[in-house]
Amino acid sequence: MAHGGGGRMMQKLIDDVIQPIFNNPILNQKHDSAILSMPSGKLAFTTDSYVVNPLFFAGGDIGKMAVCGTLNDLAMSGAKPLYLTCALIIEEGFSIKDLQTILASMQATAEQAGVSIVTGDTKVVEKGKGDGLYINTAGVGCIAENIQVHAQNIEIGDQIIINSDLGRHGMSIMLEREGIDFKNQLQSDCADVSGLVQQLLDKNLPIHCMRDLTRGGLASGLIELATNSKHKYTLQEQTLPVHETVKTACEILGFDALYSANEGCFALFIPKSASAEAISCLQQHPLGQQACIIGEVTETHDKGLVTVETPLGIQRSLELFSGEQLPRIC
Amino acid sequence: MAHGGGGRMMQKLIDDVIQPIFNNPILNQKHDSAILSMPSGKLAFTTDSYVVNPLFFAGGDIGKMAVCGTLNDLAMSGAKPLYLTCALIIEEGFSIKDLQTILASMQATAEQAGVSIVTGDTKVVEKGKGDGLYINTAGVGCIAENIQVHAQNIEIGDQIIINSDLGRHGMSIMLEREGIDFKNQLQSDCADVSGLVQQLLDKNLPIHCMRDLTRGGLASGLIELATNSKHKYTLQEQTLPVHETVKTACEILGFDALYSANEGCFALFIPKSASAEAISCLQQHPLGQQACIIGEVTETHDKGLVTVETPLGIQRSLELFSGEQLPRIC
Repeated sequence: MAHGGGGRMMQKLIDDVIQPIFNNPILNQKHDSAILSMPSGKLAFTTDSYVVNPLFFAGGDIGKMAVCGTLNDLAMSGAKPLYLTCALIIEEGFSIKDLQTILASMQATAEQAGVSIVTGDTKVVEKGKGDGLYINTAGVGCIAENIQVHAQNIEIGDQIIINSDLGRHGMSIMLEREGIDFKNQLQSDCADVSGLVQQLLDKNLPIHCMRDLTRGGLASGLIELATNSKHKYTLQEQTLPVHETVKTACEILGFDALYSANEGCFALFIPKSASAEAISCLQQHPLGQQACIIGEVTETHDKGLVTVETPLGIQRSLELFSGEQLPRIC
Repeated sequence: MAHGGGGRMMQKLIDDVIQPIFNNPILNQKHDSAILSMPSGKLAFTTDSYVVNPLFFAGGDIGKMAVCGTLNDLAMSGAKPLYLTCALIIEEGFSIKDLQTILASMQATAEQAGVSIVTGDTKVVEKGKGDGLYINTAGVGCIAENIQVHAQNIEIGDQIIINSDLGRHGMSIMLEREGIDFKNQLQSDCADVSGLVQQLLDKNLPIHCMRDLTRGGLASGLIELATNSKHKYTLQEQTLPVHETVKTACEILGFDALYSANEGCFALFIPKSASAEAISCLQQHPLGQQACIIGEVTETHDKGLVTVETPLGIQRSLELFSGEQLPRIC
């Protein structure tokens, strides 16, 4: 508790543990606010809190996730991520060594993306008032003047492309919790896709919309978009890529892979004429090698609708789950 | 828990509870990132998580505090606050009515400051893994090109001014926790000082540095600054304004008002030649009526030092507390 009180021990925690890991000139100014020089134009601004349980899982940890998640949110709006914040809510008694591991993981992920963690905050709560560590990251990025990526741009005929197979994050968290060791076969897809998205943007492809498929998976992400864009999206069942281990895990545990969370998978809406070029651009990147078309925007629809069509032509519509498949997934 | 799962119930919570309160065109776009048009120039970027206990206290609540705190952090760097985020970590079972009250309090405070809450995030954690509600706010603001407010600008001879009396937030939280009813005499000073700061900036006063005196109070704030600027600050004991009720509360509870948190009080460093004008400008604003000079930057000092001088000329130096006077104060 003493580490959260604004006194010498908190100063020491910041100076000895946090500052050396995130080390950069803006953070080191030790201002309450970071002072940034921004290129002119539109700014993207986003935030997410991360309460994932467990903190460490196959393919990542809460730190990597807190950076990737916010970078991905910025990328989905067509922005180039520039700066992040890091606010920690630490439960009394949490191991400093684990904290260091997690902060180092944040820094490594940020560095690889070319962004800096420029300001932050540290709070400590009593035992039983938290769960080890919660992290909030906020991020800013710049959007080039010519870029307009939004649900409102989605049009009939748009192809729906995803960059990778579905449901890995949700299932790997679930297996971790159940103590089932699938580690060799299954890892979370937790990754920063902002570099991949930048590659698409650099090609000036006419992207209408992008959406990361996190909490609630592909189904929830697309249903929400369809509700906003007022269209029917028709997905082809046999094109939906699901890893064999995810399929098995879903069967064992009674989950649906289309609703299982992803942390490095997104959907891209683009006119048919540009879809082949988008696929080939995606496939040149390690995070886009499985890129494929999974469906199409087929008609306008007042309330929004997402259906999955089997090879026999039978359509079933996807519905939002009432509550959650999995709590504390991110 | 179902409200945090990314399904229909979470959508309903956002659409029915959160969106209507914060209601503004940028938020209503329902993007993962808010898209903002920023004036050119320097950007200030800051974040804080709020874990204050209790959530409601005399003079404010966690919502008002989460907005004021981040506005004040931006103001302290000489920025005009523009946009905020709001990320909620809700403990399972927390009352929707209390949530609405708190969000309405955030919105009212933001509106009064002329800023919008443009994006957010909602997480739900199991009972016993939180404490009702934790809020993170991040904020961005713009800094006019001619403004340079920083500890490095502090010079010998600078006058140290504060805008109000000391220690009210810490003591009102403490009395609330102890169940002592001082409500009629003592309220937290929780307030947004960004308007007051803007008034100073508009006058082109040569402000060298500003610092809000939150966790750890006046003493901790000034010690941290002195360490950065490598000066000795000498404060005059008889000029330090402390409300009678705060004095009494400190005596009863064994606290030192100079270390008690403030949420609407800041220190301002300014050359002697401009100090009278600064005081008169501050006093024209409701939050600056008690503005006064409390001391001066007297010499350079390698490690930084803050001393309090009694009317008899005896100096005692202030030290950072090791841990905390009060946990969960903000």
